[in-house]
Amino acid sequence: MEGKRVIGWLARDPSGHLSPFSFSLRKVEPEDVLFKVLYCGMDHTDLHQIRSEIHPPTYPLVLGHEVVGEVMELGSKVKKFKVGDIVGVGGLVGSCGECFCCISNMENYCNGRIPTYNGIYKDGSPTQGGYSSAMVVHQKFVIKIPTNLALEQSAPLLCASVTAYSPLKQFRNSCKVMRARILGLGGVGHFGVLIAKAMGHHVTVISSSDKKRLEALEHWGTDDYVVSSNVAEMERASNSLDYILDTVLVFHPLNSYIPLLKIDGKLILVGAASKPLQVDPLELILGSFIGSVKETQEVVDFWVEKGFKSMIEVVKMDYVNKAFERMERK
Amino acid sequence: MEGKRVIGWLARDPSGHLSPFSFSLRKVEPEDVLFKVLYCGMDHTDLHQIRSEIHPPTYPLVLGHEVVGEVMELGSKVKKFKVGDIVGVGGLVGSCGECFCCISNMENYCNGRIPTYNGIYKDGSPTQGGYSSAMVVHQKFVIKIPTNLALEQSAPLLCASVTAYSPLKQFRNSCKVMRARILGLGGVGHFGVLIAKAMGHHVTVISSSDKKRLEALEHWGTDDYVVSSNVAEMERASNSLDYILDTVLVFHPLNSYIPLLKIDGKLILVGAASKPLQVDPLELILGSFIGSVKETQEVVDFWVEKGFKSMIEVVKMDYVNKAFERMERK
Repeated sequence: MEGKRVIGWLARDPSGHLSPFSFSLRKVEPEDVLFKVLYCGMDHTDLHQIRSEIHPPTYPLVLGHEVVGEVMELGSKVKKFKVGDIVGVGGLVGSCGECFCCISNMENYCNGRIPTYNGIYKDGSPTQGGYSSAMVVHQKFVIKIPTNLALEQSAPLLCASVTAYSPLKQFRNSCKVMRARILGLGGVGHFGVLIAKAMGHHVTVISSSDKKRLEALEHWGTDDYVVSSNVAEMERASNSLDYILDTVLVFHPLNSYIPLLKIDGKLILVGAASKPLQVDPLELILGSFIGSVKETQEVVDFWVEKGFKSMIEVVKMDYVNKAFERMERK
Repeated sequence: MEGKRVIGWLARDPSGHLSPFSFSLRKVEPEDVLFKVLYCGMDHTDLHQIRSEIHPPTYPLVLGHEVVGEVMELGSKVKKFKVGDIVGVGGLVGSCGECFCCISNMENYCNGRIPTYNGIYKDGSPTQGGYSSAMVVHQKFVIKIPTNLALEQSAPLLCASVTAYSPLKQFRNSCKVMRARILGLGGVGHFGVLIAKAMGHHVTVISSSDKKRLEALEHWGTDDYVVSSNVAEMERASNSLDYILDTVLVFHPLNSYIPLLKIDGKLILVGAASKPLQVDPLELILGSFIGSVKETQEVVDFWVEKGFKSMIEVVKMDYVNKAFERMERK
């Protein structure tokens, strides 16, 4: 059944041009929150989406997945919000509710998750985002915005900021100073700097040019700033990082960055580059180089303990050239 | 100073043809072990190396980095071996001895590590491998081979087996049954099956053809066997694995395998494919999808706690098309 009529800014085709149009929200169900949209973030993913560069969208499409608004109406079972509250909605408006991910507060991994726009509700109707005068969303996917946070500041927290926060919080309570590099100082990148610095990490920004040096060092409090073409500096940084937060949106060579990581260091890919990135297995393998002497002794002893037999063929030394030929043909 | 004269099988150029030639080992120093070579593994990496497909080799080159032999002579400070002992040497014969990696039994990560062949000793002389009648190696890099292990069985443990063991031992004492897939059933792959099964894991082999099904199931005790072109089965296995051990030596699509991993599942790349593999960041990002509702609420509260200001620009709704144009030009 149809609910409130609203005005949304719709894309009708992959040209990406948006224009206003009237459409109906769904009816407010017992667990729903209806809110008037006050601010909505614009995200680079929206651009990918509207141009049909990610999942082919169903048009007409109302973008917007960093939505901040004021509660106008509540379903009968909603207790945690009241009319007039400021609320937010990020990238999700639904999930199956029953799987391991859903019952473990990781509904973002649920196979039945429903994105805020270009998704399909269980009843078959399309989801529409926050470029609209109002939205109806199930209370489980509605965030409380504290009154002491500026409304316009809240919007990008609902996607860009949580994109950096979600992987970085694994390092939150580390007792040592984590050494980090953040590739790119756009939306997600600058949030990464703020969050990592607040966690006490030593943060270096890597950028393709020198343009943002002052901004990084003076405004965002970055500890260091490096231009990615500075090969000498990149070599000096070899084997020094606990993690790299990679927010770059275009194709870039991961092989330049992986050697900067310490053992067990993490490369965190969050930039939605539209071309696949390349990983050279030889680089990884020569980095870890088989195993340690201790592990080699362990595996020999393990073989004896388990009584294993390996799959081998024994040949004489003068058969070696023939054996390599056979290996190559395999 | 030169030591014992030996016969080695040398490669003189990238043709890969080996032929016997006499050369001198280094003199036995106080910490060295001199042993007669009895068996030496042949590894696919040797083939890459001899053809100059990895690090350009210095010719003449004596291959061999899975070496088993009998101790003939010991340096004055060597106490842990005696003449007649059976010993082994893997991929390394030296390292700096002082860095964090070296003092933590991870000398395989040392930047100053010295590979068993095509390496350079600190005195500038080249290292030569086990395709030789004898070798001299510093005792730190010599493995004890137990007397109840068949000599010819020991050789591949020194590289191929430890290549599988080193990453898998992180799962050794897991209290739950780890679900694993192993890509490829060659040297490293079959060792992976043996080790993973011995650790109590549920192991499925994925192969490009049906050829090795019987061998996998009946001889190696694999739990299941899947041909990689079986799309329906791959879809059924989505989100089910704790780890994948990838031993494939040729280019293959990682995007087919990453979706099989559970949250925090691990893709372990040990196959020395000579072409870079591709990782689609969109696939990874759409897999984890920003962050959970709980994390979104956390980050909003974190912003208030820290008093952060984001970098934003506020525009009116009817400026949206212009704003996307500007975003695209950035």
